[in-house]
Amino acid sequence: MLEARLPQAALLKKIVEALKEMVNESNFDCGDSGISMQAMDSAHIAMCSLLLRSEGFEPYRCDRVISLGLSFSSLSKVLKCAGNDDVVTLKAEDDADTLGLMFESPKEERVSQFDLKLMDIDSDHVSIPDQEYDCTVHLSSAEFARICRDLSTFGASVVLDATKEGIKFSASGELGRGGILLKQQGSVDDSSPTSTRIEMREPVSVTLSLKYLNIFTKAAPLSEVVTINMSSEIPVLFQFSIGDIGHIRFYLAPQIQEDD
Amino acid sequence: MLEARLPQAALLKKIVEALKEMVNESNFDCGDSGISMQAMDSAHIAMCSLLLRSEGFEPYRCDRVISLGLSFSSLSKVLKCAGNDDVVTLKAEDDADTLGLMFESPKEERVSQFDLKLMDIDSDHVSIPDQEYDCTVHLSSAEFARICRDLSTFGASVVLDATKEGIKFSASGELGRGGILLKQQGSVDDSSPTSTRIEMREPVSVTLSLKYLNIFTKAAPLSEVVTINMSSEIPVLFQFSIGDIGHIRFYLAPQIQEDD
Amino acid sequence: MLEARLPQAALLKKIVEALKEMVNESNFDCGDSGISMQAMDSAHIAMCSLLLRSEGFEPYRCDRVISLGLSFSSLSKVLKCAGNDDVVTLKAEDDADTLGLMFESPKEERVSQFDLKLMDIDSDHVSIPDQEYDCTVHLSSAEFARICRDLSTFGASVVLDATKEGIKFSASGELGRGGILLKQQGSVDDSSPTSTRIEMREPVSVTLSLKYLNIFTKAAPLSEVVTINMSSEIPVLFQFSIGDIGHIRFYLAPQIQEDD
Repeated sequence: MLEARLPQAALLKKIVEALKEMVNESNFDCGDSGISMQAMDSAHIAMCSLLLRSEGFEPYRCDRVISLGLSFSSLSKVLKCAGNDDVVTLKAEDDADTLGLMFESPKEERVSQFDLKLMDIDSDHVSIPDQEYDCTVHLSSAEFARICRDLSTFGASVVLDATKEGIKFSASGELGRGGILLKQQGSVDDSSPTSTRIEMREPVSVTLSLKYLNIFTKAAPLSEVVTINMSSEIPVLFQFSIGDIGHIRFYLAPQIQEDD
Repeated sequence: MLEARLPQAALLKKIVEALKEMVNESNFDCGDSGISMQAMDSAHIAMCSLLLRSEGFEPYRCDRVISLGLSFSSLSKVLKCAGNDDVVTLKAEDDADTLGLMFESPKEERVSQFDLKLMDIDSDHVSIPDQEYDCTVHLSSAEFARICRDLSTFGASVVLDATKEGIKFSASGELGRGGILLKQQGSVDDSSPTSTRIEMREPVSVTLSLKYLNIFTKAAPLSEVVTINMSSEIPVLFQFSIGDIGHIRFYLAPQIQEDD
Repeated sequence: MLEARLPQAALLKKIVEALKEMVNESNFDCGDSGISMQAMDSAHIAMCSLLLRSEGFEPYRCDRVISLGLSFSSLSKVLKCAGNDDVVTLKAEDDADTLGLMFESPKEERVSQFDLKLMDIDSDHVSIPDQEYDCTVHLSSAEFARICRDLSTFGASVVLDATKEGIKFSASGELGRGGILLKQQGSVDDSSPTSTRIEMREPVSVTLSLKYLNIFTKAAPLSEVVTINMSSEIPVLFQFSIGDIGHIRFYLAPQIQEDD
């Protein structure tokens, strides 16, 4: 049996909004150590994974492993019924065909109880090897979201060039060409948490689909900072932290870059 | 001849916005004691009535009874030309085919004069008997609007269960089922005006169409509180006060509740 | 070669938003004294002109006359990539087929460089004679925009009547008729900059297309005040100042007014 209580429904809302653009349905795998999920998009091009550690809930109890087959659009509709400051409690029996969600308003004058139907979803877990990346860039997630949206008017793909100077996003198309450089700020003492910081072994240049980046940036409300991990010929990893509780990770393979 | 002056156009705007979703056109019946209206929706399922007492206007003058056949969508368009703080004056001759609306801005630097064409509308007044209800619930109109909107994603109808504990709204459908309980707060001394309060002779349970409730809640901007009057087998009455001036009332018959 | 630097991208954004509703593409003519543009709408009914004096840039440099053929929808897309407070620098070579736009964020942590493709556009300059007008009205551009929008629900054209009392906007149609009078406030000492002021030799009445006025009012964010210059039988001139730098002017011929 699962019982997991989160003090703020807003967090769960943001998580589901971040996932539902890319994944229609998937299993939440609940176990002793917390809740995790892994899924590809319907075109099987990008992957995302979610981790919510048991320590993030209070209390958290899960006697044995349960797989909850969730439709994210349905879950999103149920969560719209929760106030941002409501306490949310998830409950599921071991062989449940519904997930129970209880929302309690801060002053407890409103208590809502929903039973969401679960689905049988086949899942084939891909084990993701731990990679060492040539370059890791920390930058403002809001700035990243804005750049991806802005450059989408120029073309379908963007080139990310990470050097010691900074990270540059370039796109070109019928309008012309454009490039946006975020300068490395890490050495400055008074840098804010969202200042661009780069750790690198060598410069990396990758070309990525803006369609997918614009899907990933739905996770920007979860975290002020996004971390981009890049090497030249393996999938790029975009990580958004979920407070101290866990994270959402997106993986996207670089396109073969054509010289022009 | 009618002449009626309201100090704030915002009030008349809200009244018309509350009515126009349900009623396309109806007669405003103007008499010595004020202005009233009664109308069914086009499907003849729900009814609404409006009362604006003469004391709410300053001045108010109406020598003899006049019926003003109004298109609410047209009246809404004219009122969009008024500032919220404009003084509005309604004028109509005894056999008028137009309603005059004058809007004066607070500093009188802008004066607008509109003549809205009137319509000939057949009206058959239903006399609504004064009912005693088994249960009367006072609750926040904003909360009520939110619950009706949220539960619409679950199903087409909602069950209202009023007990001493509180009022519960339940719906079910393909997603699963959901219930929202607003607890009675009346006994608490520091309760706010929008706290849920229940007066009852016996518990009542009725099933209602969410489509209509979502139409009624267009009146929520008029009043912080909505009062729901229920007995088991007669139409439920939803009342929104209009300051001290009057009220809008909506009536909706319960559906035959199917056990599931 | 052109090089022109503006301290705030917001100004250029507003200019392009003001123009692009009316004009798809046109030449920016750059010379020693600044940048100018003149264009008709696609139906050749209204005309607009833009002037940006060289003094408004810092620095401004233009060795010889250059005509930059711009698509305003494309330029608008590029400017969406600039922050409102970015410094923007325009650059073009003498025989350029692209316009360079550089956006630098205030703290210089973000530098964007765009190259927008230019177009070959035939332009036939109309020389606009300096007119003396019978009546000049200064009024709030926001109020003017609101009146034009509101009266559009009444009819396709509006009558402007300027007298010593004020300026009156009237329209009529199926709904009925409406008139909005803005009273002259000029004589009052504590009048605000957006108070209605009228300078006149004689009263003027003109009938104008609301469709075009609603296009012109896209320029309202540029200036708190619009100046309307009218005589009975020549095109009416609407002028929006661009700070101390220049202005946008719109010209629209009156319709033949039918008595009703």
